[in-house]
Amino acid sequence: MHSYIPSSNPSHFNLTGQSIFDWAKSHYRDHTFNKDEPIPTRPGLLYFVEQGAIRIVGFTQTNETLPKQSSHSDLSLCEAVFLGFVGAGLPFEIVSQFPISLKAIAHVEATSVIWLYWQDLEHWPDLKQEVFNSFRYQHQRKLLWLSMLGQKRTIDRLLGFLTLLIEEYGQPSDKGYYLPYTLTHAQIASAIGTTRVTVTRLMGRLRQEGLVSLDDDHLIYLP
Amino acid sequence: MHSYIPSSNPSHFNLTGQSIFDWAKSHYRDHTFNKDEPIPTRPGLLYFVEQGAIRIVGFTQTNETLPKQSSHSDLSLCEAVFLGFVGAGLPFEIVSQFPISLKAIAHVEATSVIWLYWQDLEHWPDLKQEVFNSFRYQHQRKLLWLSMLGQKRTIDRLLGFLTLLIEEYGQPSDKGYYLPYTLTHAQIASAIGTTRVTVTRLMGRLRQEGLVSLDDDHLIYLP
Repeated sequence: MHSYIPSSNPSHFNLTGQSIFDWAKSHYRDHTFNKDEPIPTRPGLLYFVEQGAIRIVGFTQTNETLPKQSSHSDLSLCEAVFLGFVGAGLPFEIVSQFPISLKAIAHVEATSVIWLYWQDLEHWPDLKQEVFNSFRYQHQRKLLWLSMLGQKRTIDRLLGFLTLLIEEYGQPSDKGYYLPYTLTHAQIASAIGTTRVTVTRLMGRLRQEGLVSLDDDHLIYLP
Repeated sequence: MHSYIPSSNPSHFNLTGQSIFDWAKSHYRDHTFNKDEPIPTRPGLLYFVEQGAIRIVGFTQTNETLPKQSSHSDLSLCEAVFLGFVGAGLPFEIVSQFPISLKAIAHVEATSVIWLYWQDLEHWPDLKQEVFNSFRYQHQRKLLWLSMLGQKRTIDRLLGFLTLLIEEYGQPSDKGYYLPYTLTHAQIASAIGTTRVTVTRLMGRLRQEGLVSLDDDHLIYLP
């Protein structure tokens, strides 16, 4: 039973020995990306992050048949929503369904990614099981994420969002757990349905109250 | 490869022949629930809906250490957020992580549910694979759902929400696809981060514009 229970921390999901990465390289199915470079993806392929991390973002094309309520709304056409990270050793896939598109973007410098067909996984049955475990775990996390977004007050969503990210990706330090990836206030705002200005203001408040702290590299800590 | 690509419509995921349900009943692992009755769940167990449908809802305990901004916020303690349906033949599991709790609730009258341990699935390797496919598919749907929620205008979120639900659960009719489950305006509001009153107003607007219609049972149609 144990092997089917997703861990509360996906660092346990560092799925892959070196062999899958060696195999992918010998089949020319690897590429290294610069920070913020989009990763070309195709439906039906499975990807693994070898090193670095990607972020997944979503874009929705606004329905043009609905009348605009203000000129401001033109800005919201195809705005990116931050949907989470995928770190080293973990799988991802990118599906889209009109009018929603998902994209994978290298979140840190020198992020390397490999890809394979799903049927290639038949060569690695244990890995295949772990891939499915990882998606099962991701599904659970997204249900928690959606619950967190249901909170009425923006400051509750902000603290809930940071807590979920740090539970999932956090690294320990002597100052508490921290998120090893930078996030802009605009990226945070996109995820919790508010504006960059509000995130900046509320991050100040959370820091004043000692619920969040930042280090010199702007990484976010939960004490 | 085909068997790993989640279908765009999960009716293809009617996973189970009768045998798993027969097995569960012979092991006293089945129960039938009334509409809106909560389904007791335990972490580490896997559930299947045999007939009817459940809805999954999320509750977040508001962080008490944050000062309230208004007396209104007391109402938001433990408010339920609608997170989706699970229909007949499909699996679900319920995890929680403080301060977020998920719950399964019978959405229609006479919803019957069976449960098993994950290791019981070893007796049904094909079913086990389909369970993982289903969670993989659910993960993809939740990423699309989160993208939809990133839209700034409430009417875009409302139409996007209804479209996602009807893509996933919709049944064909001569008036277009419809959602075979009723949803209250309060439930819709919880999912898209707005108020019941706003949902009522915007549903009126979508109906006026012919983008949505209702039948006599208040079921929602997309033409």
